[in-house]
Amino acid sequence: MLPSTYPDQDCSLARALEVVGERWTLLVMRDAFYGVRRFNDFSAHLDAPRSVLSARLAALVDAGLLERRPDPEHGGRRLYEVTDKGRTLWPPLYALRAWGEAYAAGDHEPGRTFTHAHCGRPLDPTARCVACDTVPEPQDVMVIPLGTPGEGARTDPVALGLRKPHRLLDPLPGPDTRPVGRPAGG
Amino acid sequence: MLPSTYPDQDCSLARALEVVGERWTLLVMRDAFYGVRRFNDFSAHLDAPRSVLSARLAALVDAGLLERRPDPEHGGRRLYEVTDKGRTLWPPLYALRAWGEAYAAGDHEPGRTFTHAHCGRPLDPTARCVACDTVPEPQDVMVIPLGTPGEGARTDPVALGLRKPHRLLDPLPGPDTRPVGRPAGG
Repeated sequence: MLPSTYPDQDCSLARALEVVGERWTLLVMRDAFYGVRRFNDFSAHLDAPRSVLSARLAALVDAGLLERRPDPEHGGRRLYEVTDKGRTLWPPLYALRAWGEAYAAGDHEPGRTFTHAHCGRPLDPTARCVACDTVPEPQDVMVIPLGTPGEGARTDPVALGLRKPHRLLDPLPGPDTRPVGRPAGG
Repeated sequence: MLPSTYPDQDCSLARALEVVGERWTLLVMRDAFYGVRRFNDFSAHLDAPRSVLSARLAALVDAGLLERRPDPEHGGRRLYEVTDKGRTLWPPLYALRAWGEAYAAGDHEPGRTFTHAHCGRPLDPTARCVACDTVPEPQDVMVIPLGTPGEGARTDPVALGLRKPHRLLDPLPGPDTRPVGRPAGG
């Protein structure tokens, strides 16, 4: 197995990749920006093996991008929340996503768009609001679904929560998007 | 070994990571933006095993980000050049590098900075020129070394070429940075 560091590469890109370059890591951070906070919700929305997911979450906590705190709804479990440092990853993560949409998506239709909550206008490919000429903080960004989910679309709680407009970092699934039969506040 | 695709992740970020998410891939593209074009120069500047480097270059050609053409200076060998599609990767690559510099570099001093060749002003963390309010194409960006290389700094031809200001995508090493004894044009 290849190691995950680049010790002889004297370059900030190598340092960034040591933190977020391992398989699944940026997708875990994507879900954390969507507001996912519980291990079981990350696990249902990602297809990573649980052991890999567990290792990636632990590494992101160690790197200071996520923090664990007790889950008030589930005694003994933890929530993972994006730290202030973690929030700084939003522009590069969004830029890479925008590149994938423009140049790597093949025939895929765009599934969602991102807008500045303040003015409702879209973000450009560098995460800048096209109207306000600022790069909004992630908590000021809305993720807006486009079109109707096709047959075979994911139906996990996170995917269902993303079927309507949702502000980044607002908890997902929220009380109104929990599957029927799952208590919202207990 | 973990696979390199994310087939059930319906997200442009996953598509981007399928193209550039494997270990070493973004560092190969970084070097290609620096102007590296020959296998042996990539190999001397990166610490990737040659088999891994070979696989990454082939994958980047398959993805349309690099193209091979005959090396006029070395019969039978190939040059790798960044395509128009490859150039579109510059803003997300730069954004991730800028994040690494700000948040993952630890005690490392910044080794270089990037400026807009047109006006000489620096790029902001999203690859936008702070003066012109545009995101310059990579061929309009200068990479400028900062400070003096420390003891133990790399001395391969690419590293030596980067010790003076260099325009992205201009061939590196250039004729004036070839090691002594190596013909420049033969």
